Amino acid sequence: MSRRRTPRKPRDTGLAQRPFGEVRNPLRPTELISADQIETIHQASLRVLRDIGLKVDSAVARQLLARAGADVDGDRVRFDPAIVEEMLIGLPSEFTIHARNPEKSVTVGGNSLTFATVCGPSFVSDLDRGRRAGTLEDMRNFVKLSASLNIFHHEGGAGCEPLELPPETRHLDMMLAQTTLCDKGWQPCWMNTAERARDCIEMAKIALGTDEDGLRMRPGILGGVNTNSPLLFDDGQAEAVIEFARAGQPVHITPFTLAGAMSPATVGGSLVQQNAEALAGIVLGQAASRGAPVFYGHFTSNVDMKTGSPAFGTPEYAQSVIISGQMARRYGIPIRSSNTTAAACVDAQATYESDMSINACVQGHINVMMHAGGWLEGGLTCSFEKLILDAELLQMQAAFLDPIDLSEDALGLDAMAEAGPGGHFFGTAHTLARYETAFYSPILSDWRNFETWQEDGARTATQRANIIWKQLLRDYEKPPIDPAIEEELGAYVARRKEEICG
Amino acid sequence: MSRRRTPRKPRDTGLAQRPFGEVRNPLRPTELISADQIETIHQASLRVLRDIGLKVDSAVARQLLARAGADVDGDRVRFDPAIVEEMLIGLPSEFTIHARNPEKSVTVGGNSLTFATVCGPSFVSDLDRGRRAGTLEDMRNFVKLSASLNIFHHEGGAGCEPLELPPETRHLDMMLAQTTLCDKGWQPCWMNTAERARDCIEMAKIALGTDEDGLRMRPGILGGVNTNSPLLFDDGQAEAVIEFARAGQPVHITPFTLAGAMSPATVGGSLVQQNAEALAGIVLGQAASRGAPVFYGHFTSNVDMKTGSPAFGTPEYAQSVIISGQMARRYGIPIRSSNTTAAACVDAQATYESDMSINACVQGHINVMMHAGGWLEGGLTCSFEKLILDAELLQMQAAFLDPIDLSEDALGLDAMAEAGPGGHFFGTAHTLARYETAFYSPILSDWRNFETWQEDGARTATQRANIIWKQLLRDYEKPPIDPAIEEELGAYVARRKEEICG
Repeated sequence: MSRRRTPRKPRDTGLAQRPFGEVRNPLRPTELISADQIETIHQASLRVLRDIGLKVDSAVARQLLARAGADVDGDRVRFDPAIVEEMLIGLPSEFTIHARNPEKSVTVGGNSLTFATVCGPSFVSDLDRGRRAGTLEDMRNFVKLSASLNIFHHEGGAGCEPLELPPETRHLDMMLAQTTLCDKGWQPCWMNTAERARDCIEMAKIALGTDEDGLRMRPGILGGVNTNSPLLFDDGQAEAVIEFARAGQPVHITPFTLAGAMSPATVGGSLVQQNAEALAGIVLGQAASRGAPVFYGHFTSNVDMKTGSPAFGTPEYAQSVIISGQMARRYGIPIRSSNTTAAACVDAQATYESDMSINACVQGHINVMMHAGGWLEGGLTCSFEKLILDAELLQMQAAFLDPIDLSEDALGLDAMAEAGPGGHFFGTAHTLARYETAFYSPILSDWRNFETWQEDGARTATQRANIIWKQLLRDYEKPPIDPAIEEELGAYVARRKEEICG
Repeated sequence: MSRRRTPRKPRDTGLAQRPFGEVRNPLRPTELISADQIETIHQASLRVLRDIGLKVDSAVARQLLARAGADVDGDRVRFDPAIVEEMLIGLPSEFTIHARNPEKSVTVGGNSLTFATVCGPSFVSDLDRGRRAGTLEDMRNFVKLSASLNIFHHEGGAGCEPLELPPETRHLDMMLAQTTLCDKGWQPCWMNTAERARDCIEMAKIALGTDEDGLRMRPGILGGVNTNSPLLFDDGQAEAVIEFARAGQPVHITPFTLAGAMSPATVGGSLVQQNAEALAGIVLGQAASRGAPVFYGHFTSNVDMKTGSPAFGTPEYAQSVIISGQMARRYGIPIRSSNTTAAACVDAQATYESDMSINACVQGHINVMMHAGGWLEGGLTCSFEKLILDAELLQMQAAFLDPIDLSEDALGLDAMAEAGPGGHFFGTAHTLARYETAFYSPILSDWRNFETWQEDGARTATQRANIIWKQLLRDYEKPPIDPAIEEELGAYVARRKEEICG
């Protein structure tokens, strides 16, 4: 923490954005099931853990779990309900992710909503060049856009894979982009081995100018691990949980429960299995380091039973988001979910599936919305136009949650008297005083009349998004970074590449 | 009620639709403001009615209001709060709209949601022919599609105006289409004179084979009246309220409060004014016929302060929908709102603005969602592709509200044991038993992988919607109608045209 921070200056992208800021949801969380039904899911998942258990590929993880009292039989691990219940006591209900720019730190838990850009796609797409394999340039551009759009609190995973780079060391290039091109909190793109999890931690330490203890006190990254549903923890994922838990870095356990394929063909059954797998991961994290910030992950969706294709942003998805929120609150821990769609292009379907996801996340008080910007095509593709569209959707949600002013002055009875029956409010003093900030100002919506819109090119929202992201890229200014830190990050990446590739 | 009904047979459109059915919202309504704040709005609107009052152009209406105790000064009418409070007692909280096909009757009130297609546009658009003036053929096609899409409970207003027909009698052609091409409940397109309101009532009586008393006992149409905001009731609208109230037909009073133009440039002020105007209309309805089913209308949105263009489906719109729902529940009466967008074409913007509207309506327990299908471009245009898109959005909402099965059988613990760690669920007995009905089946979404989608023409959702509505029109079968009724409706329209045009 000793390094001097260079002064920050706010960037002006020319876009009428909301300022960067935490989003707090003042509304009561939506409840789709009763307290008794929450217990039904909880108890059923305890039965799964007791009677079927999980296959755990990691010997290290099995050893930790055995020491915590689990029943280890070969690679199968079963859990007595009492052990699970005991491990659920004292989990952190809230934590802060400290960004390189401290003004961009965010608290996760309670009624907070953290939006993070997409993580994981191999493909990238835009209207100019279509869908194609991701490259280093695309990845870096995506990180720059993540940095430029205020509504995203976290760089969520560097957008797309730079597929031309060696797979063994790609995560280092992605994290270098995340830590140097963006000053927000970040979520690592690859958490599938202990070694890669350690790279995340080391680079977070460098970026934040701190050491292992400092990072534990003030977490700087937010990790996530998927189980290999059904009921399987592979060794890399299990060991990444252990690595993060020991380093005190928040990590969510997110079962990959696609109903009908990786979990039962019912929302209820898939939520039971999701809950069982999430609890197993939480127990593993606690076995590694009691009190570590391990939290609840939701990903449950369903497949199209006719084709086996994964479906996202469906009614069942929305139901499972909201019920998962209820489960997480039962355990008193934060929860992550996602903004998802199965659409192949940035069209009405991409929009309504994302909207259904986002609304469920907001109604269900999801704390971390992963893939909140740029996800397309079931997560296979990151789209630059979708990123802009998502920014608008999220800004609108944030504005919707803004408090309503019902002060005497806001009510404007004088203006009504001034305008009078059949009059108009454009010129009233009340309107003039509010002219510039009265209402939400969109970044993407076009409200002009049909003729004006048509004469100006009759562009769809997706075509307008294409113009916006290119302008944002041109306007991008790299957030200030201490040159010593940047150099050290580069050196770490170079050294690790040599170690890995020899 | 003496006429024999011809037997009905269900139509099969080839589309995987949900069956026709009432939608009930089991969730707790979202509350954006406190009980105290509801009273703040109520009391402020009473002050508006007392101190500023409304201009009422109709002498008949002024006479009724004076008799009810209002203070009439020229064309200005002011209301003592006690009179308003007294008139709010005993308003019907629920009523049924009886459809020509009794299986398509719906109850309005409480937690029910009624979806009605769009009303009012002069223009029509589709991908093949673009945006153009509405015609008789377009209007009739739109009514056929309204009839064919199960998710719409009401034919909401015949889509577009047939602009080639004389404006004086157009409403008759539209209602003839509504009553003969569709067997659902319907909402009249034109309620702006007492004479037109009477035409609605007469045609409803013929369509339902009943008389004035029979229709009063079993209402068959749902009307709506806008105030000319700010604070003006023109004579036609005021007299339409009186006509409907006396005939016992439900009518909502919907102030045209576009914040910043027709009402103060704040959500709070616009809601106060909306409430004042709605209460004035309700008082008028009660003065005409005490206990008549007059209910609450929401339309409040805002204008873009830079251009004056109306904006729809905005965060402020969503806030005002939800708070209006709170106001209507305070008065114990049903409420209408709408599915709106300002977009000029069926793109991502049209989708997210509609989604924001629809979500607010569902969260805020709006009972009647007008313009739920086909509205585009601030209501100036009715779009065939938008109608299909809206049907998908609404079906998804209805599926989201379906109950969740958490029975032991649904939870599928046996299937988890059968699949086992790392296995799959495609072939489990649990999945096979649920194969066909497990999940929501979309009408518009395409979940195939990118390559398949691309090879099949890479169609956007809007392009697919274009294919769907044309197929639906080809598949349309006119719902059975007693030939005597159809003849009588035609004769009524012919006679009235002669009376009106001479």
